[in-house]
Amino acid sequence: MTTNTRIVLASRPTGEVTPANFRLETETLAPLADGEVLVRHHYLSLDPYMRGRMSDAKSYAAPQPLDKVMLGGTVGEVVESRNPGFKAGDKVSGFGGWQEFSVGNGRDLQKLPDLPIPISAYLGAVGMPGVTAWYGLEKICKVKAGETLAVSAASGAVGSVVGQLAKAKGARVIGIAGGAEKCAYVTQTLGFDACLDYKAGDLDAALQAAAPQGLDAYFENVGGAVTAAVVRRLNPFARIAVCGLISGYSNNESTFLDLRRVLVQRLKIEGFIVSEHLDIWPQALRELGTLVASGKLHFRESIAEGLAAAPEAFIGLLKGKNVGKQLVKLV
Amino acid sequence: MTTNTRIVLASRPTGEVTPANFRLETETLAPLADGEVLVRHHYLSLDPYMRGRMSDAKSYAAPQPLDKVMLGGTVGEVVESRNPGFKAGDKVSGFGGWQEFSVGNGRDLQKLPDLPIPISAYLGAVGMPGVTAWYGLEKICKVKAGETLAVSAASGAVGSVVGQLAKAKGARVIGIAGGAEKCAYVTQTLGFDACLDYKAGDLDAALQAAAPQGLDAYFENVGGAVTAAVVRRLNPFARIAVCGLISGYSNNESTFLDLRRVLVQRLKIEGFIVSEHLDIWPQALRELGTLVASGKLHFRESIAEGLAAAPEAFIGLLKGKNVGKQLVKLV
Repeated sequence: MTTNTRIVLASRPTGEVTPANFRLETETLAPLADGEVLVRHHYLSLDPYMRGRMSDAKSYAAPQPLDKVMLGGTVGEVVESRNPGFKAGDKVSGFGGWQEFSVGNGRDLQKLPDLPIPISAYLGAVGMPGVTAWYGLEKICKVKAGETLAVSAASGAVGSVVGQLAKAKGARVIGIAGGAEKCAYVTQTLGFDACLDYKAGDLDAALQAAAPQGLDAYFENVGGAVTAAVVRRLNPFARIAVCGLISGYSNNESTFLDLRRVLVQRLKIEGFIVSEHLDIWPQALRELGTLVASGKLHFRESIAEGLAAAPEAFIGLLKGKNVGKQLVKLV
Repeated sequence: MTTNTRIVLASRPTGEVTPANFRLETETLAPLADGEVLVRHHYLSLDPYMRGRMSDAKSYAAPQPLDKVMLGGTVGEVVESRNPGFKAGDKVSGFGGWQEFSVGNGRDLQKLPDLPIPISAYLGAVGMPGVTAWYGLEKICKVKAGETLAVSAASGAVGSVVGQLAKAKGARVIGIAGGAEKCAYVTQTLGFDACLDYKAGDLDAALQAAAPQGLDAYFENVGGAVTAAVVRRLNPFARIAVCGLISGYSNNESTFLDLRRVLVQRLKIEGFIVSEHLDIWPQALRELGTLVASGKLHFRESIAEGLAAAPEAFIGLLKGKNVGKQLVKLV
């Protein structure tokens, strides 16, 4: 008999997410049925997209149901299996949600490759955020050597990978992040050419100084005033990969793009959801895993300890309090 | 000695274009130098993009210079040549401007193929507007059989070709135009599945009725309230080709796109200028010429008579008074 602790969605947020939107519960798990796998989660992934699912507004994904375990990516270890595809001890990633254990038929589980990297990396640089960065850069931004790319939320799980991959292609990379500490990390550890602190004011002047030749591509994670400043610096034929708009997730503010600017500058803009492009995941994960294992792709993690810390860590993520990938460590 | 009559830009418009922005002049042309070609224009093309060039605001093209002949496409006949590439009697298209004759080194001139179509078609369906339609449809909208496409300014030189080419691909095509007469032409002669009169009010309801499955692609010629209504009906993965925004050319009104919509619906938006894609012109012109010659591609022309009528015809074009391609007939 396994006792499982889990966090469910207690109510939908109006405006900012609060701890009262969540509820911690315990349950006793039934014995496994034929074909089932029991996984103990080592880490949970906290991601901005979860804010969208907490609302019941129409979006690309179904809303997170009320009173059900919060959905989310996980990595962990198989503790018991009645499925021939898995055995106890297998390290796996999956979509187990905000709980200590998950039981499933194994279809959502991926066995992790045997690379010399920490298991948590499969939720970050070698997981969904890394593949998101890879897709937006390869398929939409398509930066070439000598071009200049800007990326917002530059110290985050996605932005940090975007910039490093673009640097590897020979592009000039301008990060945008909130605060001097994040910016120092972005330039000194990640190796971006510049990082602009949007909280420091006059982003227009800072962009002009950092990208005197203008911007050829923009990887969009935040929206709002940052986007407006970036768009003013875009060169003809610039590409915008619209990956996220975290600045508007809580206050419902929109970010508008002037179509005249699109026409006059011949811009290309594309929104994407990485889970809809499964065909590129194997290649992307192989490349990202190799880069991390060889020390060529850096990442940082903000780790909250214990399941009960997940709500506050998630609220902090939405406010930009994390640096790098936000995780919850369970084991 | 040839006397040439021409129209120059006398002043830049503030708001709407007026006849006072133009001035009619005559000049005596110098004898041809070695390598030069003298062309008598049969037709001038009037196009919405000319409004942009009359301003000195930053855009993709240099502004039309003051006191110089208005720039624009022309078709006509070589009357004298000191260039071995051309001889008197050759039918040519070029960029001769708002005047009866032009003299040049021949580099801008294209000899017209020997197809059984009127010479004016090379300024419309088998010229720049036709290639514009072809490029936006083939390279950006990429509609497939069974999908639904909307096109604004549907009775115009570009929109009329967009819809007919999309119909030939098996798409459902919804035109949007101003007034019952234009709409009747669009459905009855051009064969679109529906045409919505944006002046008739409640475009949202009309779009819902005409495209109950939503829209998979939009060819943008106008901007403003039409665009807002169309965007509300776009399906996931819809494509927008931003070709023109004529509704804002005179009043300087912007058309805004909500990036959240771009993300949630995974839209793809691209602005383009057909003159920057010269590689596709030969294929496009070959296909368009064949379709017109075989009677499979219809077009209509609004023809103003005589050079002096050009300013009023151009002002009418900006207000949507034309149906189909707006031309000025000189010979």
